[in-house]
Amino acid sequence: MSNITKKVSWSSRPDESGAAGEGTPLLNGSEQPRHSRQLSEEGSLFQIGRLSTVDLEEERTSDEDSLRGRPKEIPHNEKLLSLKYESLDYDNIENQLFLEEERRMSHMGFRCLEISRWVVCGLIGFLTGLIACFIDIAVEQLAGIKYQVVKENIEKFTEVGGLSISLILWAVLNSAIVMLGAIIVAFFEPIAAGSGIPQIKCYLNGVKIPRVVRLKTLVVKVCGVICSVVGGLAVGKEGPMIHSGAVVAAGVSQGRSTSLKRDFKIFEYFRRDTEKRDFVSAGAAAGVSAAFGAPVGGVLFSLEEGASFWNQMLTWRIFFASMISTFTLNFFLSIYHKNPGDLSNPGLINFGRFETDSVTYNLYEIPLFIAMGAIGGLLGALFNVLNYWLTIFRIRYVHRPCLQVMEAMLVAAVTATVSFTMIYFSNDCQPLGPEHTEEYPLQLFCADGEYNSMATAFFNTPERSVRSLFHNQPGTYNPLTLGLFTLTYFFLACWTYGLSVSAGVFIPSLLIGAAWGRLCGILLASLTSSSSIWADPGKYALIGAAAQLGGIVRMTLSLTVIMVEATGNVTYGLPIMLVLMTAKIVGDYFQEGLYDIHIKLQSVPFLHWEAPATSHWLTAREVMSSPVTCLNRLEKVGTIVDILSNTSTNHNGFPVVELVTENDEGGNPAKLCGLILRSQLIVLLKHKVFVELARSRLTHRKLQLKDFRDAYPRFPPIQSIHVSQDERECMMDLREFMNPTPYTVPQVETLPGV
Amino acid sequence: MSNITKKVSWSSRPDESGAAGEGTPLLNGSEQPRHSRQLSEEGSLFQIGRLSTVDLEEERTSDEDSLRGRPKEIPHNEKLLSLKYESLDYDNIENQLFLEEERRMSHMGFRCLEISRWVVCGLIGFLTGLIACFIDIAVEQLAGIKYQVVKENIEKFTEVGGLSISLILWAVLNSAIVMLGAIIVAFFEPIAAGSGIPQIKCYLNGVKIPRVVRLKTLVVKVCGVICSVVGGLAVGKEGPMIHSGAVVAAGVSQGRSTSLKRDFKIFEYFRRDTEKRDFVSAGAAAGVSAAFGAPVGGVLFSLEEGASFWNQMLTWRIFFASMISTFTLNFFLSIYHKNPGDLSNPGLINFGRFETDSVTYNLYEIPLFIAMGAIGGLLGALFNVLNYWLTIFRIRYVHRPCLQVMEAMLVAAVTATVSFTMIYFSNDCQPLGPEHTEEYPLQLFCADGEYNSMATAFFNTPERSVRSLFHNQPGTYNPLTLGLFTLTYFFLACWTYGLSVSAGVFIPSLLIGAAWGRLCGILLASLTSSSSIWADPGKYALIGAAAQLGGIVRMTLSLTVIMVEATGNVTYGLPIMLVLMTAKIVGDYFQEGLYDIHIKLQSVPFLHWEAPATSHWLTAREVMSSPVTCLNRLEKVGTIVDILSNTSTNHNGFPVVELVTENDEGGNPAKLCGLILRSQLIVLLKHKVFVELARSRLTHRKLQLKDFRDAYPRFPPIQSIHVSQDERECMMDLREFMNPTPYTVPQVETLPGV
Repeated sequence: MSNITKKVSWSSRPDESGAAGEGTPLLNGSEQPRHSRQLSEEGSLFQIGRLSTVDLEEERTSDEDSLRGRPKEIPHNEKLLSLKYESLDYDNIENQLFLEEERRMSHMGFRCLEISRWVVCGLIGFLTGLIACFIDIAVEQLAGIKYQVVKENIEKFTEVGGLSISLILWAVLNSAIVMLGAIIVAFFEPIAAGSGIPQIKCYLNGVKIPRVVRLKTLVVKVCGVICSVVGGLAVGKEGPMIHSGAVVAAGVSQGRSTSLKRDFKIFEYFRRDTEKRDFVSAGAAAGVSAAFGAPVGGVLFSLEEGASFWNQMLTWRIFFASMISTFTLNFFLSIYHKNPGDLSNPGLINFGRFETDSVTYNLYEIPLFIAMGAIGGLLGALFNVLNYWLTIFRIRYVHRPCLQVMEAMLVAAVTATVSFTMIYFSNDCQPLGPEHTEEYPLQLFCADGEYNSMATAFFNTPERSVRSLFHNQPGTYNPLTLGLFTLTYFFLACWTYGLSVSAGVFIPSLLIGAAWGRLCGILLASLTSSSSIWADPGKYALIGAAAQLGGIVRMTLSLTVIMVEATGNVTYGLPIMLVLMTAKIVGDYFQEGLYDIHIKLQSVPFLHWEAPATSHWLTAREVMSSPVTCLNRLEKVGTIVDILSNTSTNHNGFPVVELVTENDEGGNPAKLCGLILRSQLIVLLKHKVFVELARSRLTHRKLQLKDFRDAYPRFPPIQSIHVSQDERECMMDLREFMNPTPYTVPQVETLPGV
Repeated sequence: MSNITKKVSWSSRPDESGAAGEGTPLLNGSEQPRHSRQLSEEGSLFQIGRLSTVDLEEERTSDEDSLRGRPKEIPHNEKLLSLKYESLDYDNIENQLFLEEERRMSHMGFRCLEISRWVVCGLIGFLTGLIACFIDIAVEQLAGIKYQVVKENIEKFTEVGGLSISLILWAVLNSAIVMLGAIIVAFFEPIAAGSGIPQIKCYLNGVKIPRVVRLKTLVVKVCGVICSVVGGLAVGKEGPMIHSGAVVAAGVSQGRSTSLKRDFKIFEYFRRDTEKRDFVSAGAAAGVSAAFGAPVGGVLFSLEEGASFWNQMLTWRIFFASMISTFTLNFFLSIYHKNPGDLSNPGLINFGRFETDSVTYNLYEIPLFIAMGAIGGLLGALFNVLNYWLTIFRIRYVHRPCLQVMEAMLVAAVTATVSFTMIYFSNDCQPLGPEHTEEYPLQLFCADGEYNSMATAFFNTPERSVRSLFHNQPGTYNPLTLGLFTLTYFFLACWTYGLSVSAGVFIPSLLIGAAWGRLCGILLASLTSSSSIWADPGKYALIGAAAQLGGIVRMTLSLTVIMVEATGNVTYGLPIMLVLMTAKIVGDYFQEGLYDIHIKLQSVPFLHWEAPATSHWLTAREVMSSPVTCLNRLEKVGTIVDILSNTSTNHNGFPVVELVTENDEGGNPAKLCGLILRSQLIVLLKHKVFVELARSRLTHRKLQLKDFRDAYPRFPPIQSIHVSQDERECMMDLREFMNPTPYTVPQVETLPGV
């Protein structure tokens, strides 16, 4: 760790860099590259060739110095970018093999390809919907059993006075279930922890996170999320759906499973990063769609988090996957609920319908909504700061799997205890109405025919609690209950996020927000008792939920649409939008969004949408690394092996140059011919595609695109390829395999333009 | 016209070409460029410089030959692309002036800029909403008066038997009103004809259509659309809203009006194509949003029709404009309807709410929906083919304004006559229910307490007719009425589209579709009289409307979302999507979409999303024009004036090269330094930015970015700039003004990649 260098090989994600004018977190303030002057002299190669590898390389000696004093366990420093992340290759490699294949294809071939893309998207939607359905039913069944057991126990002991036994039963049950979930995550697939949204966000932005879209991750994720929700943690099952959808997409689109060692020999054309990422976008959208019943929101989520380019057909396919996903979920849930054909459960969470007639808002309420947005932003920033510290603590001291499992169990037990205590000491009794909307009403110390209102919020799956906060009649909760609930749930949720369990933060955020939002509504109603417009605290619960969620995750467009779709009422579009905007502005003033924090803490080299405003000062010349590691068109095998093995230059792509034979006085010694990727070189080495020195006698069979596709995506490391001393002397002809038309950036281009 | 050449200067819309892999209609089948071999030898300049000007230039001798025999009046040939269209400049010109300004700006400056972008978008939404509100109220008032007068007249003459007088009254009234609308369009602003959607689509795709976003166009458009709707033509007022929103956006964002000669000295930073187009997208979205009450649909419309890049902040702002627009409309309409605070009229057309409980569909109905989609596709293609022939006819023979006005009047009179005849001969009487949903029920020959059902469809604004087809009770219409109505309205709408009046095709399409859709529903119900699921013909009307509209305009994603938002029910998302997909596939088999037909007929060089599938055969080298017109960094004024005046090379941007002083044997005589635009050269010439031959004595004041912005967007033609013989001998230094980092494309890049 003493010589950490950052390399963000922009060369292999050209559409990112060419697209939206992206900046980089590296280039803030004092971090001006020190090589800049030197480069402009040395970089004469660029004058003609316009190499595309604008690499960022900085040796952070200052950071290193400050690191040296610390203990060995510190696995990271958030300001450093990790070397373990590579970028996806977005540029189509238009080499001779590829062009030959494209030119062999007929019109019919392209049409079949297009149709199979649609089929894949349909499958993605269908499978994602099924998974959502499975999770929903599993959670409902298991949680039902658990609540029934605990409820009976509580009822038994309420009168005889041994409620501590109930508490212990509850806590032990929760801990046991959560332990199961934590063990599979911590020991088998740590990447399945959390909601997976930061990881998917990175993936869609072009960062290849290892193991993130594997089958094993999916299995662990699904089982893990069931355990954590059933285990009563302050989590939701919605976030993980996005990750699940993405894994499904990555699997289905490749037509094979490396884990299961099955190759169906279909969809081979899609075995490259460009195509795969498109499908992963569709999968993520299908996940959102299934989670919230929001197909349009899903599409916008994919676009907001991932897309640099707007591609009409792709978006249309993403929308198709989303539609199929929500339809599948809806259809199977309607069968499960013994009401086939009733397609009114489009998502895992349904906010219930806000009817325009009954719940309307007025122009003068908008400032109030905006104020609530600001509160949401503040609370969200607080949540994020606390979670940030907690995560730093966890990274330092809780990084062994068994410790992680124990922490998760502890949280589960504490959650149960706190809930129980809150319910126990609450004296907010509500009459048990004829509608009987509560699934598990706890009478506790209330009179007969009444139930404990605090228990509605705590002794229930969070989805139900949210819905009851939105829609229950005015007067169902008293303000003290809501205030206490907000406070405890806030800290519980904050503690829970980042545990090594699969779980999302959407629902807890909504729940916290709905609680304090409803509180605001009640207070307003009591202040202005005459006017009926304030009477319904449900809409304030909705606004509060939006504000809190916006304050924590800082999503904007897609979240607005998701909320609008989930409430089924476009009238609330404008207030929700204003609230989310306010929450984002206020929150950003203090701290980044939760997902961005976790991305940063994982040292992922993530490029944001906008370059820093003042980065017009910097040009490509000043941020690129130098000297550039180049290969010749006809290169010695030994040189290639050495370059690939050299850990200090482990770039992912190398420019291929041609030496101009003129005398050197013009200062133009080399000309760019193309770009070749590390993975391509590895495949070439593996297949021994060498030209012996006695020219033009080939020692290898003709390589096909298929060879590259078969190796994709798990290319072996260079160390696993044995190259004999004789072979080192051979030459490799790169012309046929390199991409002759890589993206290039002029040296004088400013950073936002890059 | 004898020497028509096509020049699509790709150089100045690099993000288009770099983005989605766009092809060009030029390169189909036999149209292989003849220069290709020649170029690869001549183009040695490209070997190093990588010029960005990949211009397409073809002299179509074969087409010319076939043209020669025809009369002079033929103003176009649809296979030729017109020279009158230029492209927008999307690349930020990062020249020294620009960089200096950017570097002078503080963090605060960028923040203010960002805030002013939001303010502009808010204003755009507000004004667009107001315009929609104005149109709606004006149409309602005027149409109300008209229908009242005619209704009273008809009632008077029904019994005494002089109904022909009523017919004449109706026809004359309609013709007079339509004449007014046609006169202002035909004589004052022909670009305001039609819905304006094809023009906006072109603009968003980077084609600069002359006069399309001017204030005068807006005024003519608004008055024109009121006249045509009140005049009883088979048109809607929704399409023109999109154009209106775009004009508002282009005007507001520039902070001045060239027509009114007012410059508010604000938003000067936005006076360039890049920024302006962003705002125009927002305006178009706000227009859709106001028209259909579909803010998300508006955003997606803008993206589907225009965007190559997905920019998060921009989309978010577009959404904001859409939200404000629908909110403004809703708010003011609620005041107009004396029901302030009731925000349930979000758009100009409201489909009314389809409740999930009452109107549900079943899995086995989906094949039926798809079949209806196919019917919609067929009917849409028929509509488009008929309209295509009609438009060809109009272009040939009806191109004088007074002829156009007369045609419009004729159509108005025929529409009135046909409607009247249909109503007269219809004997479909329906009881006048207690709800009394019809605004102007005509009794005619029906018994007392009944009204003529055909009159509901014809004697009404089309918006109301659509709604009654969707929501009226089963049995309100008999099948014969619907069949006849579909038939006549189909031909009327087809005849009407393309008239020189401002009017949209959305509502007529929906109306035709709703009519035959409802017919299908009724037939299905009569076939399977037992099952209650078929009972409601309203949902079939909805599906039919979607199918017909999809078959005509071929929009996909945005139309689905618009329909979903307008019905307020996400459950119908999947069927609508499948229907639109089917309609598009079936329709595309026969004929392009209506908007694409009109774009082609106007000879606009429009690039589609996808390159032709088999264009991998072609590389940039083969489609570029040669020799390239280059300028030196220090160029003689005379040369520049000559190049700009030369009509055979009227490119919009010129590469600036540096001659390498080496001996020529290497074959690299020139190196690309940058790109300079025609408009920049014009401004430089206007301000006489010359360097006299006695070096470095400048004869001009220092030019500012402001000078370029003041001239934007109406740069004078080169002919209006006088350059004396002495001045012709001066030199111009282009280095400070050229864009040093234009987009470049390697010669060997394939066409889809370009």
